[in-house]
Amino acid sequence: MDNILLLAPFGSIFALLFAWYLAAKIMRESEGTETMVKIAAAIRKGANAYLKRQYTGVALFFAGMFILLFILAMLKYITIFVPFAFITGGFFSGLSGFIGMKTATYANARTANASSKSLNSGLTVAFRSGAVMGLVVVGLGLLDISIWYFFLNAILPDAPDKINTITSAMLTFGMGASSMALFARVGGGIFTKAADVGADLVGKVEAGIPEDDPRNPAVIADNVGDNVGDVAGMGADLYESYVGSIIATCALAVAAGFGVPGVTVPMVMAAIGVIASIIGTLFVRSGEQVEQKVLLRALRRGVYISAVIIAVVSYFLVDSMLGNIGVWLAVISGLVAGILIGFFTEYYTSDTYKPTKELAGTSESGPATVIIGGISLGMKSTMIPVVIVGISVLCSYFLSGGASDFNMGLYGIGISAVGMLSTLGITLATDAYGPVADNAGGIAQMAGLDEEVRRRTDALDSLGNTTAATGKGFAIGSAALTALALIASYIDAITIKAEQIGSSFVFDLSIANPKVLVGLFVGGMLPFMFSALTMNAVGRAAQKIVVEVRRQFREIKGLMEGKAEADYAACVDICTRSAQKEMIMPAAIAIVSPIIVGLLLGPNGVAGMLAGATVTGFLLAVMMANAGGAWDNAKKYIEAGAYNGKGSDNHKATVVGDTVGDPFKDTSGPSINILIKLLSMVSIVFAAFVLSNHLPM
Amino acid sequence: MDNILLLAPFGSIFALLFAWYLAAKIMRESEGTETMVKIAAAIRKGANAYLKRQYTGVALFFAGMFILLFILAMLKYITIFVPFAFITGGFFSGLSGFIGMKTATYANARTANASSKSLNSGLTVAFRSGAVMGLVVVGLGLLDISIWYFFLNAILPDAPDKINTITSAMLTFGMGASSMALFARVGGGIFTKAADVGADLVGKVEAGIPEDDPRNPAVIADNVGDNVGDVAGMGADLYESYVGSIIATCALAVAAGFGVPGVTVPMVMAAIGVIASIIGTLFVRSGEQVEQKVLLRALRRGVYISAVIIAVVSYFLVDSMLGNIGVWLAVISGLVAGILIGFFTEYYTSDTYKPTKELAGTSESGPATVIIGGISLGMKSTMIPVVIVGISVLCSYFLSGGASDFNMGLYGIGISAVGMLSTLGITLATDAYGPVADNAGGIAQMAGLDEEVRRRTDALDSLGNTTAATGKGFAIGSAALTALALIASYIDAITIKAEQIGSSFVFDLSIANPKVLVGLFVGGMLPFMFSALTMNAVGRAAQKIVVEVRRQFREIKGLMEGKAEADYAACVDICTRSAQKEMIMPAAIAIVSPIIVGLLLGPNGVAGMLAGATVTGFLLAVMMANAGGAWDNAKKYIEAGAYNGKGSDNHKATVVGDTVGDPFKDTSGPSINILIKLLSMVSIVFAAFVLSNHLPM
Repeated sequence: MDNILLLAPFGSIFALLFAWYLAAKIMRESEGTETMVKIAAAIRKGANAYLKRQYTGVALFFAGMFILLFILAMLKYITIFVPFAFITGGFFSGLSGFIGMKTATYANARTANASSKSLNSGLTVAFRSGAVMGLVVVGLGLLDISIWYFFLNAILPDAPDKINTITSAMLTFGMGASSMALFARVGGGIFTKAADVGADLVGKVEAGIPEDDPRNPAVIADNVGDNVGDVAGMGADLYESYVGSIIATCALAVAAGFGVPGVTVPMVMAAIGVIASIIGTLFVRSGEQVEQKVLLRALRRGVYISAVIIAVVSYFLVDSMLGNIGVWLAVISGLVAGILIGFFTEYYTSDTYKPTKELAGTSESGPATVIIGGISLGMKSTMIPVVIVGISVLCSYFLSGGASDFNMGLYGIGISAVGMLSTLGITLATDAYGPVADNAGGIAQMAGLDEEVRRRTDALDSLGNTTAATGKGFAIGSAALTALALIASYIDAITIKAEQIGSSFVFDLSIANPKVLVGLFVGGMLPFMFSALTMNAVGRAAQKIVVEVRRQFREIKGLMEGKAEADYAACVDICTRSAQKEMIMPAAIAIVSPIIVGLLLGPNGVAGMLAGATVTGFLLAVMMANAGGAWDNAKKYIEAGAYNGKGSDNHKATVVGDTVGDPFKDTSGPSINILIKLLSMVSIVFAAFVLSNHLPM
Repeated sequence: MDNILLLAPFGSIFALLFAWYLAAKIMRESEGTETMVKIAAAIRKGANAYLKRQYTGVALFFAGMFILLFILAMLKYITIFVPFAFITGGFFSGLSGFIGMKTATYANARTANASSKSLNSGLTVAFRSGAVMGLVVVGLGLLDISIWYFFLNAILPDAPDKINTITSAMLTFGMGASSMALFARVGGGIFTKAADVGADLVGKVEAGIPEDDPRNPAVIADNVGDNVGDVAGMGADLYESYVGSIIATCALAVAAGFGVPGVTVPMVMAAIGVIASIIGTLFVRSGEQVEQKVLLRALRRGVYISAVIIAVVSYFLVDSMLGNIGVWLAVISGLVAGILIGFFTEYYTSDTYKPTKELAGTSESGPATVIIGGISLGMKSTMIPVVIVGISVLCSYFLSGGASDFNMGLYGIGISAVGMLSTLGITLATDAYGPVADNAGGIAQMAGLDEEVRRRTDALDSLGNTTAATGKGFAIGSAALTALALIASYIDAITIKAEQIGSSFVFDLSIANPKVLVGLFVGGMLPFMFSALTMNAVGRAAQKIVVEVRRQFREIKGLMEGKAEADYAACVDICTRSAQKEMIMPAAIAIVSPIIVGLLLGPNGVAGMLAGATVTGFLLAVMMANAGGAWDNAKKYIEAGAYNGKGSDNHKATVVGDTVGDPFKDTSGPSINILIKLLSMVSIVFAAFVLSNHLPM
């Protein structure tokens, strides 16, 4: 068994090497004209400045948490490894975002330049940049897990329950990654939308200059935002989903009676996913047709090929390790659910389908009906994902043997999350490619490249919107399954701890238990509170950008005539500061709530809270992502000529929708995924503390 | 014990007599000038036409359900009383709405006319009309319960578990009231907002004529809407909350070991509430100051006096019947929670406090930020109600003895809901008074009454907005507690049934049970789906009104010059038809979901679904009601002169917010309360059917 487990570190290193190879290939391309080089450098500088500031702030937080965890470890509430693992998780998560973003900022001008040769060249550069990100995330994730597994395996004394000790220690390691992910998502999300909304409100609406116009002082901040929010933020986010699903499943393996083989399967399956993703990337290429359907097929081909490889290989893996074909079917149910959720997300948000077209039609009676239409579209779109996740949960539970052994069923739910995320290397590539194409379009516009180039980058960008929407659906779906696996692990963790410390605590997780019920309510409320805070943060930060852009238009002589240059750095700086400041409160909610609820209501209340947060978090995240996506595309649909086209009252009404949708889909919605997992992670780390210190009521 | 229980029918009859006395007093007032009489008659005619059509449609539904229930009864899934009780519940619920609305349509012109004498005269007429409604609701509710209780007690043979047979039969009776309430709320809500939005979109925005202008063809429909939605709909809604909380608590009494006295307490407490409410109404009077604070104090005085009476008298009741002071404390916790939720609703939605003022400020950067601000205000405002309900649930559970006996705790939760709703007679009076004042203002405007009269009716109307907001908070809070009591009763009902039919089914309500978990997700999704449908319905119906009003402006010569009369009836008819058609789908969701989920996932899944729907339903309802209220008042705040005042861009931005808020606060939000209770009621009625026929998985 030790031999096959080596696949995990090897797969990880292979992913990183291949990412390095792709990055090198990107770097060999030219960045284009002098102006393009200059713009790309400005974006890079802004993005680096932001990350530097963010990582400094986050480092302080990590230092503080390290001390706190160290004290907890001294008090024997957690093992001594946790504070260190907390740091490594945070470090690797941040590093994933950093490398992905670095690559993206090097690839943007190169994509614009390559697009002047051919559409396929542009797609290739942008997609490679996305693939670097995808592979770095899975590579580092698997590396972190492997290092700790082999390290703990080596230093811990042999004992019958050694594997249990290892997995329950590793379970607590996810908190570092989740914390980092939350900061990256929330901070990046606030940055990108404040810049975007601020730039649009003054530039497009007040001054009447086009999007991505170099005279707009917030234009660089807007482009920086795409990188720090949609790339670095998303990378950190999916890093933690990925790691979380694997370690939760490992922790569930022991209780399910699968022992070491049960731990081996998720880790090796992740390694198989890495190889399959790399193979998939080789199949992504396009012709010269800018049609969405054709381009989408090019990207999808890669994803489907990877999925098939994983489906086939994992059959032999599961069969040989566990001899339980039900577990393999759980993997398949996760894989299929991920693809289906992505498909229905596209249905609800793409303007090739009825819902978004109808939403565009609501612009006939003004912005209010556009808002009502978008919100109800988002609400309605929760139904199918709920049904898909529900079926997937039931299938993976019962097929894995949940009817006869509860714990085997829970392991099945965990492994279905691993199955869904096994294609992450390539799914993330198709997703992270979007912001690069978006930036490329902006650079092409600012550098005054040929119309034809812009047409190509626009096609790539549009495609990016669709893959971003499906990527979000995928992120949310996997988050729900991972969160469920984490809740199950939490229950396990408390049960084991209670035995160890001789506590008389016994779970009563019935929804008729008032503590569970109150936990459900409180947990259900958290995503609402969290979304409110993040949306407000975007509003406040955008307001500051508006003031600054107005100031520059007023004070910098010759700016509007294109004779003087805008002070781009000032806007970047405002976004950076705001994001920095505003991410504290939402993060505090995620970290403090499980502890307070735990101390007041005990572990039953915490479990209720986690379930409540998962349910409403999932619903709100789907609703916000889909409403936002549909608003964006309804606007684009009108811009393409429907309902009186660009500049009409209909168009203005949909611009209002799009602006409301910005924080929905790029700040609050995607951050909720992390919130629900971080809540679980914090609950797990503080499990023993809560168990010993909660109110005796 | 039989003697004290007679208080229930006596209280009920006393309430109805006092309501009749108040109605007679209203009728003695003059309706004012000829124009006023004419307008009032038109409103009355429209409202009657709507109710007639609605009741015809609903009668068909009730006939169909009667047959279905009759078949179920023949198959021994329910007792033979259920189909008949279903009819009486629906009948009394509809009757409450009908009488309340009738009174309101007779009181509106009289309020306008009385306001020309003095503010206090206007307040008196409007408040009396509200009090008629409040007392009819509690009177008929208590009558329905009493009749069935005494009837069943008389005809059923004496047996040790006779009381159990009675209460579990009565528990199923709530479904009729809930179904009627759903139709009334959803249909009325669609009617009122379609008319309101439609009238505003063409009249105010396109044609530039003021609100309530007689030239607007939709103006009568708008006024009719206030009566059928805000009066008849709300009456039916709270009727079912009231009856639901009492019968759920009675059903929990037996399992808690309280026996007959445990059944007596909620019924007698309701009777005490009736008397206390009547006493409270006697204390409502105002001076001549139009200040909100002063007027609010006048109304609140009545509510507080009633609450104190109930608190004191129920102490002796509980002490003598149960000897358990903890149960009395549960009553108090419900009473206090109701008042606190009302207060915080006011904090979030009144423009005398910071949140709404800040929301008005977001209009500086246009409609998009107003929408973002309102939604985040609504989301943020869920926190305090969740905490209040949570504390109230825990207090009532543990103080009633839940720590030693689970069922006693559940009884405590039920009785706290009864406590909260015991003041319903007067709380509903303060709430139902609003639409009357609103109509009075409209009539004063249309009839060209003196400026001073309009100033007075405006003051009364403004106050109505505040009491409507607190009333909604109260409705939502009581719905949550009632729903929890109903879930507990559902679990009891299934357990008893399983014993009776010798089924081996045993509950596993753990949130780690995947069926419960999937139930939670599905239940959580239902309020989203339901809101989406009802919001869309308003949009579609409003669109039809827009087309019709445009047609009349175009085709009726001399209408804009005031020389020809608009065809008001056409708009009323469109609203009526739309409401009729659009209420089917949302109602179908509520009735079909528990059966489908039950058949697929069994009773565990149903319990999960009920919990999920209660949690997200509560959160969404609070969010939508408060966002809508705050948008409305932010607009009013600007109209009063803040941020550049009426007609400014700021004002236009808040009009968008207000329009979005209309279906939020008056259609979708308040209907969710009923949805979550109807789901429970249907689950209870179909309990035995589901138990015997669900998938064996």
